[in-house]
Amino acid sequence: MATTDNHDVLALLREGRPRTKTELAQLTGQARSTIGIRLDALLERGLVTILDEAVSTGGRPSLSYAFNAKAGVVLAADLGATHAYLGVTDLAGEILAHRREELAIGDGPVAVLDRVADAWDDQLVGLGLTAADVRGAGLGLPGPVEHSTGRPVSPPIMPGWDDFDVPAYVAGRFDVPVLVDNDVNILALGEWTERYPDETDLLVVKVATGIGAGLVCAGRLSRGAQGAAGDIGHIQVAAESSRVCRCGQSGCLEAYASGRGIAQSLADLGSAAATSDDVVELVRSGDPEATRLSREAGRLIGEVLSACVAILNPGRIVVGGEMARSGETLLAGIREAIYQRAQPLATRQLSVVTMQDPERGGVRGAARMALDAILAA
Amino acid sequence: MATTDNHDVLALLREGRPRTKTELAQLTGQARSTIGIRLDALLERGLVTILDEAVSTGGRPSLSYAFNAKAGVVLAADLGATHAYLGVTDLAGEILAHRREELAIGDGPVAVLDRVADAWDDQLVGLGLTAADVRGAGLGLPGPVEHSTGRPVSPPIMPGWDDFDVPAYVAGRFDVPVLVDNDVNILALGEWTERYPDETDLLVVKVATGIGAGLVCAGRLSRGAQGAAGDIGHIQVAAESSRVCRCGQSGCLEAYASGRGIAQSLADLGSAAATSDDVVELVRSGDPEATRLSREAGRLIGEVLSACVAILNPGRIVVGGEMARSGETLLAGIREAIYQRAQPLATRQLSVVTMQDPERGGVRGAARMALDAILAA
Repeated sequence: MATTDNHDVLALLREGRPRTKTELAQLTGQARSTIGIRLDALLERGLVTILDEAVSTGGRPSLSYAFNAKAGVVLAADLGATHAYLGVTDLAGEILAHRREELAIGDGPVAVLDRVADAWDDQLVGLGLTAADVRGAGLGLPGPVEHSTGRPVSPPIMPGWDDFDVPAYVAGRFDVPVLVDNDVNILALGEWTERYPDETDLLVVKVATGIGAGLVCAGRLSRGAQGAAGDIGHIQVAAESSRVCRCGQSGCLEAYASGRGIAQSLADLGSAAATSDDVVELVRSGDPEATRLSREAGRLIGEVLSACVAILNPGRIVVGGEMARSGETLLAGIREAIYQRAQPLATRQLSVVTMQDPERGGVRGAARMALDAILAA
Repeated sequence: MATTDNHDVLALLREGRPRTKTELAQLTGQARSTIGIRLDALLERGLVTILDEAVSTGGRPSLSYAFNAKAGVVLAADLGATHAYLGVTDLAGEILAHRREELAIGDGPVAVLDRVADAWDDQLVGLGLTAADVRGAGLGLPGPVEHSTGRPVSPPIMPGWDDFDVPAYVAGRFDVPVLVDNDVNILALGEWTERYPDETDLLVVKVATGIGAGLVCAGRLSRGAQGAAGDIGHIQVAAESSRVCRCGQSGCLEAYASGRGIAQSLADLGSAAATSDDVVELVRSGDPEATRLSREAGRLIGEVLSACVAILNPGRIVVGGEMARSGETLLAGIREAIYQRAQPLATRQLSVVTMQDPERGGVRGAARMALDAILAA
């Protein structure tokens, strides 16, 4: 389940249903006096409101307390190599503003984060809000991040970002808690909490310029010991040719099956396709070579995912990223390889689906990450 | 961390330190009255004792409460294909009796579980105890198990066990809660809680007649959606020859790198080795072919583990099972392949070690599984 701590008053109220002090004491096992102290603090922070329609339980009327999702907003960013999705949500994660911005992550952290902060300012103005309404910010970056510090760790496609203190820089513009994770972890968090909260084991795969995955294991987002979990793009696959990956190794999944990899295969055949978007357009227009290469990419991704299925036994795999926009072609190759290789027990109830609303998935997850952090305190 | 629920009085006392009612109220955030009710119930069950040496805090003396690890025992079994380790522990998981029994899992559940129960009876007699002292039982089986029901699910090397109600049968001899899981999950639970409680992400690999892994992800034992997580023996590897696995697929890791696989390779070369134990003896005696094949098996295992490292980013990999007794030969091959393939960030702080005391690891884990279940209630 996506909900973590039922011992906390605010976690219970965030589930949506207003509660009386008696109910909260029963549900948490805490003393009414402890509940009262916690509620007073939450009322003072504006995170909880007392409902007008007090419910009578026979004796004196008891007040109901509700989570106040309108007590502020959080800022969310899902940054990719060549563009970003930026949003503002309320404290329940409802998206109030959302936009796409073209930007190059390679311009470095100062230029990129200034652009992001300017866009957020603009979005706040559009909502009639100011920086004073902001409670927190969440950012997803296209590379490894040490989640506890919010600093990128030797990110291969983010020159200038290594060890940059992203939270401190963003907090210079918005003086709030700033949470950072890699792009696939926020995607996984968003899909899990918003779409599949009942899955305990979920794998979210992003197939874009690169390939990576976010993992939910036994009901928790799993980042691994150094935050590098889900780095499936550099697992070796049995491809026909031997191609050196940007990581320096040869035979990496990403070198063949990412948008960049397929574009290179098309270029080797004399096509002018250069980006993931070009490849998607060719597949959607029915180009036979692009379609064939996309299906073969799906098979290679499926080969690696069949190992993921053996290792993790997820109940569901969600495929997102730009390449997922090429639709059933990629997915057919993925399913073919998974069901061919994986053991029956692990695939008996496995669903392999594409991500709904991929443009907003990252923003949802980035907002959720920030909300979980600021509302746990 | 291996400790899960700090809101519970008994979980706190199990950590070992005696506590006063005031401390327990502070640590759990619960009312003194709630604590008092819980303590009374635990005192009645004998799980908690009041310490004689009452500590004075200035005013009236306050009583200290301690977990009573001597209030009973649990029975633990770690069953393999050809033998079992059986044990009795106290309620803190301390092993009071331990033995190895030769038995064939293929004799079916009734014959095997009768043997196990007889051996437990014998161990209890040896300790001066009776069935009335038993609080619970935990069993690890060499195949897939639905943990919630304790029933094996189409286990390939356990004829007659499919869907057998193991807890009900064992409870016919010892009328206590009976918990069942696969052998690698109990190994992982034992290693984690007893040896590496500070690891949040841990992989325990068993290399024996078959090959499997137990996973700890983000501080939880991960069984997967159908309890099939860690089934790494049937991931495809790049071996020289094409050999059909007992699962029906070709190219499975287990077909080459398990004890059975190496024994078959030796047989193909004209050697008489037939079991994992034979292979281990040959390696330990310096046989060059067995040593070469064992190192090559290590490389193939390392190839699969490098994918596990990419996917899970564990802080530590523990290699156990009979084949780990062949020592550095296997481990050298494993390390070579992992460090050659995996990305620097994921291996920067990775330790790859062999299991200490592998004979007792499974019993420790099986006992812990039972203890966590009976002491959570």
